[in-house]
Amino acid sequence: MNLQLKIALAQLNFHVANFELNKQKMINSIQEAKELKSDLIVFPELSVCAYPPRDFLEFDSFIKSCIDAVHVIASHAHDIAIIVGAPAYNQSERGKKLFNAAYFLEDGEIKSVYHKGLLPTYDVFDEFRYFEPASTFQTIQFKGHTIALTICEDLWDEEIEDLDNNGKLRKTYSITPMDVLMEQNPDCIINIAASPFSYIQAENRQKVLHRNALKYQLPIYYVNHVGAQTELIFDGGSMVVNSHGTVVKRAGFFKEELLMVDQLDLQEQANKHIDDELERIYQALVLGIKDFFSKMNFKKAVLGLSGGIDSALVCTLAAKALGKENVHAVLLPSKYSSDHSVADAEALAKNLGISYETIAIQSTVDAAELTLKSSFANLPAGLAEENLQARVRALLLMGISNKHGYILLNTSNKSEAAVGYGTLYGDMCGGLSVIADLYKTQVYALCNYINREYEIIPSNTIIKAPSAELRPNQKDSDSLPEYDVLDKILRLYIEERKGFHEICEKGFDDTLVKRVIKLVNANEFKRHQTPPILRLSPKAFGMGRRMPIVAKYD
Amino acid sequence: MNLQLKIALAQLNFHVANFELNKQKMINSIQEAKELKSDLIVFPELSVCAYPPRDFLEFDSFIKSCIDAVHVIASHAHDIAIIVGAPAYNQSERGKKLFNAAYFLEDGEIKSVYHKGLLPTYDVFDEFRYFEPASTFQTIQFKGHTIALTICEDLWDEEIEDLDNNGKLRKTYSITPMDVLMEQNPDCIINIAASPFSYIQAENRQKVLHRNALKYQLPIYYVNHVGAQTELIFDGGSMVVNSHGTVVKRAGFFKEELLMVDQLDLQEQANKHIDDELERIYQALVLGIKDFFSKMNFKKAVLGLSGGIDSALVCTLAAKALGKENVHAVLLPSKYSSDHSVADAEALAKNLGISYETIAIQSTVDAAELTLKSSFANLPAGLAEENLQARVRALLLMGISNKHGYILLNTSNKSEAAVGYGTLYGDMCGGLSVIADLYKTQVYALCNYINREYEIIPSNTIIKAPSAELRPNQKDSDSLPEYDVLDKILRLYIEERKGFHEICEKGFDDTLVKRVIKLVNANEFKRHQTPPILRLSPKAFGMGRRMPIVAKYD
Repeated sequence: MNLQLKIALAQLNFHVANFELNKQKMINSIQEAKELKSDLIVFPELSVCAYPPRDFLEFDSFIKSCIDAVHVIASHAHDIAIIVGAPAYNQSERGKKLFNAAYFLEDGEIKSVYHKGLLPTYDVFDEFRYFEPASTFQTIQFKGHTIALTICEDLWDEEIEDLDNNGKLRKTYSITPMDVLMEQNPDCIINIAASPFSYIQAENRQKVLHRNALKYQLPIYYVNHVGAQTELIFDGGSMVVNSHGTVVKRAGFFKEELLMVDQLDLQEQANKHIDDELERIYQALVLGIKDFFSKMNFKKAVLGLSGGIDSALVCTLAAKALGKENVHAVLLPSKYSSDHSVADAEALAKNLGISYETIAIQSTVDAAELTLKSSFANLPAGLAEENLQARVRALLLMGISNKHGYILLNTSNKSEAAVGYGTLYGDMCGGLSVIADLYKTQVYALCNYINREYEIIPSNTIIKAPSAELRPNQKDSDSLPEYDVLDKILRLYIEERKGFHEICEKGFDDTLVKRVIKLVNANEFKRHQTPPILRLSPKAFGMGRRMPIVAKYD
Repeated sequence: MNLQLKIALAQLNFHVANFELNKQKMINSIQEAKELKSDLIVFPELSVCAYPPRDFLEFDSFIKSCIDAVHVIASHAHDIAIIVGAPAYNQSERGKKLFNAAYFLEDGEIKSVYHKGLLPTYDVFDEFRYFEPASTFQTIQFKGHTIALTICEDLWDEEIEDLDNNGKLRKTYSITPMDVLMEQNPDCIINIAASPFSYIQAENRQKVLHRNALKYQLPIYYVNHVGAQTELIFDGGSMVVNSHGTVVKRAGFFKEELLMVDQLDLQEQANKHIDDELERIYQALVLGIKDFFSKMNFKKAVLGLSGGIDSALVCTLAAKALGKENVHAVLLPSKYSSDHSVADAEALAKNLGISYETIAIQSTVDAAELTLKSSFANLPAGLAEENLQARVRALLLMGISNKHGYILLNTSNKSEAAVGYGTLYGDMCGGLSVIADLYKTQVYALCNYINREYEIIPSNTIIKAPSAELRPNQKDSDSLPEYDVLDKILRLYIEERKGFHEICEKGFDDTLVKRVIKLVNANEFKRHQTPPILRLSPKAFGMGRRMPIVAKYD
């Protein structure tokens, strides 16, 4: 049948546990949708409390606030119907206490409640920790239409490769909710989602919707969150797919939008994907920084600018996200810093128009070394002295951070976070780790992308050999393999979870592979203490990767 | 029927991913059990890889190593049968790739494999992340006996209180594996477990086994891990419960033991619980430190000794766990340190017989403050200057740690970790956080317990008012409520997950409760960067408590 419904998809930037803000945003969107004569407005998964609420879901007071919010929103369901995501109590005597639910609101009240059937519990997801999976599935009857309402993963029972690489495909879940719902002859599918960004996710999402639309020969209305909640960045990209699997409408990426849909058969000028992966990453990082600051009620950032590429990139992103007037750079040269380091850092600060100051670390380093003289017992200088410099920098930066209320940005990249090439309580400090999900080779690519029209990041910063400058003439390549090789091995181990033999089979040197894996594993204890990392890849360090610390690694 | 089986329960201290060590321990136990004419030896849940293997389970190479280990152990199954815990591939086309399994080994081979049905996914557990729950349940036939083999949580489908406090009880799981297994008329239950310590867990465990024994009128053989894997401490306490629910045999706590059982009806001198909660905590902490060091291949610890109670307690525990020759204390007085601080710290070091040195922090603090003079722009002295002192202490301690290869122990307690009364990259540093799951009131109690026979911790350290000594005449009580009130509110919020109104209803002042909850929430960002914390309570900070950082908290 031809759908006669005018539907509004509300892609909004919610804030975890900020019920007042979230409700107000939804009420405003309802008002706007009413003015545009919509029949139905749809909000994303768990929209009342934002996603992910995590262990707040174990507080009954929190659940009550969620349900109170649903009632308030229901009171606005006059002349329009509303679908909103929120937890719901499990009324049966068995199973977990809650469902991840979608509420259908009409005539000022809750008309019906739908439960999520497939609960992701991989990578960053923990839904089985809180929710019972649905055991029954019902369609909605609305204005002569039958709607199959699904929640995010419910459409994602994709076939995946088996663990033992035997070539077999398997489905992770034992049921397929849409197969059940098809018995009720729906006219369309609505999917409310909380699908976080990674640089491969937009295509994945579209493929899944395409496949479902074709399989069931139904149009799909898909609405996602936008905005960052600490590590997780939601990119939006809400869309409508017709029953041929073609995207006929799409909301923008990385911004709020009320997407109005009333005619499915015409392919309108659907917003495109952001084709360039670097552009996506750039926008995700800018949104990630911006939302971290605004949602934590922070205003200004401070960071150490070394003249190297990592801090240059983070500084550039921060200036874009927070405004140049809200970023303060500190140059912290030591006796091992090269002249060009200071010059390159100054050039960047000037290009960006941010404030900066220069603070020499040597007198504090000298004082600490003198204090430690007898403790160091004439042992040869080495790692302890190198780390001391990095920690004095952190000490001074945190002093400025505390004194002025600036938030320190961490500038570690994923390659060094992986192998532990960083100093705990030194350059590993910060309130937010901006680029620790970008390998060094991606850092280069992103800097070149930023410089594509004119030079923002000084070219000397990009072309010089990377160095921590903690001893004379030090180069990263003294301690680490070249980044293009290192990053490939790291990707196989971290993203693809290949073991030693499998990685060697790809043509890498055995000794090198062994060394890299050993370094990654041996540095779990360091990564345990890092700031939250903006997630960009399908496997970022942080909540989505949970490795033991005490373990034997071969 | 009267059981004619002689069963050995092997309570061993495994090491995550250390297949060689774990196999060797099991082979030694098999040998010993054979010499004692056992029919069957039983190892705990996931014993080949130790518990918890966490995301190692996503590596096929790791799973292969697990299964290889099972085959090696099977080759020793002559003249004895063996039950061992290990992951198993899911051979069906749907569901997660792995089962959490128990292998029954006989005549040198794998005879059958049993899958866990109830997968804990609360607090520190993540089993649904990796495993498919069993859908069928089969007994083992062995020497004329029918054995119901269950894995840990399979016996824990307890009734719990509903979330909305409506007085209803509910079962978390939708099936009860033993109800299914009873259809096959088993003669006994075997339960292989990985049940981590908390100070209430030993009684819980016994209650659960008691209830199951009575319900099914069957004896239960229960075998648990012992030993610590980073945060999680396994206390052992393997036991045999007869069909009347009486414990007839029990292995010791906090130590390895091969518990031999051949006659069930006689109640022998079963080892008792450790009745005293403080004694349990003491033993758990000593084991936790000891295993962290031995499994990480570390030998010596360093810590800052302030003269206060927290560092005194950690130092005492470390000396017990590692030996007095492996603990080095550093006194780091500042101009705000009182005379008694140094005296009390020295007295403790002498009581324990550990080495110590005194390093004054003032010259490094002065150098840093001078360096920061223009950055601090004549703003009044405050938090920045206080934190600077704590960070200089960390800088110097980490210097000594790096130079000598000592591991820094963190001495934060749970009360201060909860409200953020600590300096990030200052006193919050360390490789292991020893007492951050003990509230300050518990710290006092444990010190008094340690001093019960003679004074180890100087009494002045225990009786003086707690102070961070970061400004003249500072007392904790200047910034915080008295600990006996604070700790009660914290317990209600953290352990019991009560909301603001529920806590106020217990008779606490509204303003105070609001302030405490706000402090706990606002300091998630700090706790995100703390070292792993030895878990002692049913709700410790760390892997078992997952709260959002960016959130609105009221």
